[in-house]
Amino acid sequence: MAKEGADMTEETEYMIDKNAGKETANAAESPGSAKEMRAVMLAGFGGLNKLRVAKKAMPEPQDGEVKIRVKACGLNFLDLMVRQGTIDNPPKTPLVPGFECCGIVESVGENTKGFEIGDRVMAFVNYNAWAEVVCTPGDFVYKMPDEMTFAEAAAFLLNFVAAYMMLFEVANLREGMSVLVHSAGGGVGQAVAQLCSTVPNITVFGIASCFKHAAIKDSVTHLLDRNVDYIQEVKKISPDGVDIVLDCLCGENTGKGLSLLKPLGTYILYGASNMVTGETKSFFSFAKSWWQVEKVNPIKLYEENKVIAGFSLLNLLFKQGRSNLVKLVTDKLLCLYKQKKIKPVVDSLWALEEVKEAMQRIHDRGNVGKLILDVEKSPTPLMANDSTETSEAGEEEEEPEGDNDSKERMPFIH
Amino acid sequence: MAKEGADMTEETEYMIDKNAGKETANAAESPGSAKEMRAVMLAGFGGLNKLRVAKKAMPEPQDGEVKIRVKACGLNFLDLMVRQGTIDNPPKTPLVPGFECCGIVESVGENTKGFEIGDRVMAFVNYNAWAEVVCTPGDFVYKMPDEMTFAEAAAFLLNFVAAYMMLFEVANLREGMSVLVHSAGGGVGQAVAQLCSTVPNITVFGIASCFKHAAIKDSVTHLLDRNVDYIQEVKKISPDGVDIVLDCLCGENTGKGLSLLKPLGTYILYGASNMVTGETKSFFSFAKSWWQVEKVNPIKLYEENKVIAGFSLLNLLFKQGRSNLVKLVTDKLLCLYKQKKIKPVVDSLWALEEVKEAMQRIHDRGNVGKLILDVEKSPTPLMANDSTETSEAGEEEEEPEGDNDSKERMPFIH
Repeated sequence: MAKEGADMTEETEYMIDKNAGKETANAAESPGSAKEMRAVMLAGFGGLNKLRVAKKAMPEPQDGEVKIRVKACGLNFLDLMVRQGTIDNPPKTPLVPGFECCGIVESVGENTKGFEIGDRVMAFVNYNAWAEVVCTPGDFVYKMPDEMTFAEAAAFLLNFVAAYMMLFEVANLREGMSVLVHSAGGGVGQAVAQLCSTVPNITVFGIASCFKHAAIKDSVTHLLDRNVDYIQEVKKISPDGVDIVLDCLCGENTGKGLSLLKPLGTYILYGASNMVTGETKSFFSFAKSWWQVEKVNPIKLYEENKVIAGFSLLNLLFKQGRSNLVKLVTDKLLCLYKQKKIKPVVDSLWALEEVKEAMQRIHDRGNVGKLILDVEKSPTPLMANDSTETSEAGEEEEEPEGDNDSKERMPFIH
Repeated sequence: MAKEGADMTEETEYMIDKNAGKETANAAESPGSAKEMRAVMLAGFGGLNKLRVAKKAMPEPQDGEVKIRVKACGLNFLDLMVRQGTIDNPPKTPLVPGFECCGIVESVGENTKGFEIGDRVMAFVNYNAWAEVVCTPGDFVYKMPDEMTFAEAAAFLLNFVAAYMMLFEVANLREGMSVLVHSAGGGVGQAVAQLCSTVPNITVFGIASCFKHAAIKDSVTHLLDRNVDYIQEVKKISPDGVDIVLDCLCGENTGKGLSLLKPLGTYILYGASNMVTGETKSFFSFAKSWWQVEKVNPIKLYEENKVIAGFSLLNLLFKQGRSNLVKLVTDKLLCLYKQKKIKPVVDSLWALEEVKEAMQRIHDRGNVGKLILDVEKSPTPLMANDSTETSEAGEEEEEPEGDNDSKERMPFIH
């Protein structure tokens, strides 16, 4: 994947923001030398049409920061919510999305310790990850093991740190326990399954669309179809319920998850993807999700001996200042990686210019594992029947959770 | 405390239920030989006047049960809630209250393994503990260490098992953490403080009435007055908040406790003593507590990285069948006791006939450590100014949480 220079096609050329200014017109031909860079820009909250690749002034590292020449970035469901503006306290647009990337250290700011030019690193970024160059505080940067590819690194950080902290910091996973995970085929789901396999005798119930079952059947103990009543299915196998429920959907799944818990069991909400019901922001569905989510009476938790938790890794890092803790967790995870006990699952690699198609794929829940933006990849030429425009009517979409026959229509490289 | 025979006084004589039947009239003089026994009876839900000592048919051990000649019983705040009927699914009255006792094995039922006549044991009981003889399944019975007194045993089980499970099973207490505990002078509070001292570098914030501070100041790191704004006091010392909040009060303390949590912190509700606002059942205050307790939006937990849990040891044991887990925890606690790392704090010993005074003392929060019903103790003669009747107007009582000058008026033996 490490091609030198961006071999831009006509299809991607038109995506470059025409408002980026004349002085940047030739920058695409010489990405390494200019003071500008390519980045995915979100012009405003809304649909896929708010995204384009544009030129942007290249950042320089401030005090304590690391400047990274980016090779690959992770794409997460949360990025869809950012695009729609359905997050708490959304930042101002235009912005460059993206919370994680990997690449090579190009320079460091004053008082930045522990990194040298040329280091292969992966990093959390508080937005701005989807660009050719990223600057982020050294506290959020971690050295990659020699044997780790950039695609793996872009698939590693957010998913495995979140999975690890939920299982071991929040829920205290121990031998003999059982775990239910929604979206078992997604990046976090696959990380959860792998981490569970590092503890003896863990039963994993994974919920996923049927068409993914063949691909992920070996990663979990019991695979459940997302279109069936999973409460009944779990209870058939384990009448007593499960010890841990990991839910990235929210909405009615909160009550269902709590009802499935064994005594002393823990339900963890780590996302609210049910808030994304169409392709563009739907304030109504957002408000509905917030107000309709079942609020929990603590006295009921007392009577039932249950635990409910919320987990947001990005808030932990960027609002709550817990980078030290995340560093410790990352060190543990890198040990497990080196011991070949865990390995990131990459769904597909996409050029920056293909970000719309990549987002549509994760929106349709077509992925198994992580979607990666490969900064050095050229876009795959669009096929005749692959018009992004046709899928942009999503505002009125009513069945976001249903399987979708068109899931495999996007070009991608596995 | 092991007196032979009950040396009954006039004051206690009148408390014996006159309806207990003529054939039991002489049983009090020969408690070991008759088929009847003395027990504390709750005639119906309500005030202290619903309690009296009465004769009752002595139980015989069923399959798997152990019959215990009781020496001492634990009195817990929950017993007040039982008396008032302010608990979930209250049983029918008349009943014998009490959930824990200790004594000597008198016989065992068929298929009861692991116990022999003469064993010194302590036990959980699903009601019926406050009696001269108790039968309970062997799963809930544990052998006492030789060096443990009966008063200690009656103060040990419920408080230490609850404290241990909350700190280590629900909240995962680890080195360097901080804990806030309400009612720090109570039985659970003192157990929490001692267990925290078994982990390096734990900061304990204890909330208690001022008059207890001298007695418990060495057990916690920071003592806070229950009548001041503890949120402000904790934040002065630890602006970041605490890792664990243990709340037995409920009501508005739930929101306060959540607001004090550090990211990834855990709030545990293990009681709802604020529901007891007067001496007799107040349905209005009960309903108010249930509905006014702040319900928690899981999305808020997600944004703030917080955990909320409920813990009810009795439900865990008697409704949810987790006696095996409790046995493992009890074994660990008995190791800590033998290593002299923990030691139950006994507030006072009371005769069965003094149960009203004992209940009034725990209601007024006058105790430091555990109140014990000593089955073999004779009641202390009532003093002229010590009329139980005067305190029975409590229905209209409006300041259950305030300090009370009359706290020390009851007779007790420390």
